[in-house]
Amino acid sequence: MDYQEITAGVQDAVCTITLNRPERLNAWTGRMQAEVEQAVRAAAADEAVRAIVITGAGRGFCAGADMAILEAGAGGKAPESAKTVAAAPAAPAADGLAANYAHRFSYLLRVPKPVFAAINGPVAGIGLCLVLFCDFRYMAEGQKLTTAFARRGLIAEHGAAWMLPRLVGPTHALDLLLSGRTVATAEAAAMGLVRPLPAQDFLPAVQGLAREMVQAASPRSIGVIKRQVWDAFFQDLDASWKQADEEMLRSFASEDFREGVAHYIEKRAPAFTGR
Amino acid sequence: MDYQEITAGVQDAVCTITLNRPERLNAWTGRMQAEVEQAVRAAAADEAVRAIVITGAGRGFCAGADMAILEAGAGGKAPESAKTVAAAPAAPAADGLAANYAHRFSYLLRVPKPVFAAINGPVAGIGLCLVLFCDFRYMAEGQKLTTAFARRGLIAEHGAAWMLPRLVGPTHALDLLLSGRTVATAEAAAMGLVRPLPAQDFLPAVQGLAREMVQAASPRSIGVIKRQVWDAFFQDLDASWKQADEEMLRSFASEDFREGVAHYIEKRAPAFTGR
Amino acid sequence: MDYQEITAGVQDAVCTITLNRPERLNAWTGRMQAEVEQAVRAAAADEAVRAIVITGAGRGFCAGADMAILEAGAGGKAPESAKTVAAAPAAPAADGLAANYAHRFSYLLRVPKPVFAAINGPVAGIGLCLVLFCDFRYMAEGQKLTTAFARRGLIAEHGAAWMLPRLVGPTHALDLLLSGRTVATAEAAAMGLVRPLPAQDFLPAVQGLAREMVQAASPRSIGVIKRQVWDAFFQDLDASWKQADEEMLRSFASEDFREGVAHYIEKRAPAFTGR
Repeated sequence: MDYQEITAGVQDAVCTITLNRPERLNAWTGRMQAEVEQAVRAAAADEAVRAIVITGAGRGFCAGADMAILEAGAGGKAPESAKTVAAAPAAPAADGLAANYAHRFSYLLRVPKPVFAAINGPVAGIGLCLVLFCDFRYMAEGQKLTTAFARRGLIAEHGAAWMLPRLVGPTHALDLLLSGRTVATAEAAAMGLVRPLPAQDFLPAVQGLAREMVQAASPRSIGVIKRQVWDAFFQDLDASWKQADEEMLRSFASEDFREGVAHYIEKRAPAFTGR
Repeated sequence: MDYQEITAGVQDAVCTITLNRPERLNAWTGRMQAEVEQAVRAAAADEAVRAIVITGAGRGFCAGADMAILEAGAGGKAPESAKTVAAAPAAPAADGLAANYAHRFSYLLRVPKPVFAAINGPVAGIGLCLVLFCDFRYMAEGQKLTTAFARRGLIAEHGAAWMLPRLVGPTHALDLLLSGRTVATAEAAAMGLVRPLPAQDFLPAVQGLAREMVQAASPRSIGVIKRQVWDAFFQDLDASWKQADEEMLRSFASEDFREGVAHYIEKRAPAFTGR
Repeated sequence: MDYQEITAGVQDAVCTITLNRPERLNAWTGRMQAEVEQAVRAAAADEAVRAIVITGAGRGFCAGADMAILEAGAGGKAPESAKTVAAAPAAPAADGLAANYAHRFSYLLRVPKPVFAAINGPVAGIGLCLVLFCDFRYMAEGQKLTTAFARRGLIAEHGAAWMLPRLVGPTHALDLLLSGRTVATAEAAAMGLVRPLPAQDFLPAVQGLAREMVQAASPRSIGVIKRQVWDAFFQDLDASWKQADEEMLRSFASEDFREGVAHYIEKRAPAFTGR
């Protein structure tokens, strides 16, 4: 792929997508948005990829929306992002749940592979929203994050008002969103928002954890289970249970189930095909 | 205002409302209910007020419903609170969500300013319900709280069955509600129900934290974000995201957004107007 | 009762149900399923029982579905559990919420007495699902649990995709479900999934905690409150609050309310009748 504001590469089953405007602390743009989504969809479709890691080049993760965009907005013109929002296609309504997954970052919840945020440096505003819609958030020790919105006269953008309380409860979510204050890795970890890791060799450590998470599991199972977990936020227990019963019957007919039982009985490593 | 069972006063942008029946450990009455709501609504409407703190006079926070009321009920007559409930006006249905905010304490969730509980002393029963509907709960070290209901033959009153599991998860919520046991500050903090602070200079410390939370943020942003966060408990992700997109567009046209960008670029303290 | 794969006995108000196939680490079968449900319903109906404890005989809690069943399935035949699922009766729709409580383990949420899991040894797969639908989970130190499903090519069965995120949040839930990895008691406790207790005298300790939880509370209150808390996961705040107001009025007319006030005023232990 011919990316300008990100890089993407696969190694040992892990696709790493790197926000790559280090001279601007990887500030978010419309182009970066499109490139990340394209790279994620490519990784989702690539059978060689089992997990996705998103990180930032240089000393930052993502400084938020590029200030040039915000300044244009504050000057009276609607920022580019406003136009993007207005032009967003109507969400497909295939299963009654799909609309939830059709927004700027929520498509990540339907990628059938785990998505890891590797927060190597400061993250703010829209960069934090991206991070909230990853399945796992690892953060280098000694770094900082902030919602920032309330200090710019903005609001809880891009799904943050919905997702943050579900990750850390309403009290911490209100604290972070109302104050717009900056918290260090240790406090974010104490809130349950991130898992901390040493700054040294940070990215290889996250890549290793991503690999470890998927290595013994069926790719088919991972795809179905991730969908079940996020769908369950929009279902009552009855609907979720019925979905599970249907998926259970389907799994009994899969190659991966046969292999899952066989390798266990034969006491050997699994060789899942994902089918 | 001419309050009999509370006091209220504003200092440095923080309105402090004090339950004021210290000789009864601030036991709750219908009059206290009405006076607290009136004082909160006045603070919500006062542009000089940025945050609200609710505390108790003397050595208690709130001992629960006044036992005189309960005794009357146990003697065979419906307690006064029962009549209040029966006579409650039908909830306005303006936006489909409004009914959720039309109950005895849930109006606090729609006040466009953060509400802090400063739990200076013992809190029980209906007093705890009040506290659950504040945005933040600080508790003096060495104090105690209890749901109490199950030990009086009562049930999970006034929204506690809904809110407590959302604050601390279903396991801790069931523990506190089924047993009716008393827990100390440290255990309540370990559950994530309160944030502990030293008993010495407790109220000024909470007032200081309230001031700190709002000082660098746009009052307009705070009002919108608080509503977004609580609304999101009644919305799927799609509805919440659409609300955020609409509010984002609206914020771009606000004075506070212009000031939010300007003070950042000019590296000076913000001067938000709330518009 | 004439049980073959469990035992059940009542002592001092606590009914203990023991999965009893120790030679198979209490692997789950259709018969065990039926016997546990029968024993739970008997305990629910027995006025002498105030709390229920479920544990395992020997050194395990429950190793998951019996492998003989899974092997049959992997050999191309639908496992017995599949047939059970297919033949499950339509959920009664009495109150619009009842369907949520009509599944393999979710009936436990409607038992009007607290249900404790006493996880004495390893628990996996369907055994973990049983545990997720108990109100409280105590786990002996030094033991292990695993969802296991993804390592067998299976999916998040029997309500796990719905309940696990509500107990520990989506991040921990995805970790446990996608990886299928085994976690020790200490890590499960750090996630908030279980409460740890010393392995020595483990079962008596859990029985003692169960007794302690209910001893000072009205059985009537416990039944109503447990229903309120679980119902609230399927209700908005308005519906939950209205249910609470109705139950409050009903409680004012109960014997247990009169006793709850009387024993408090008379400073003596309560003598609740549950009516």
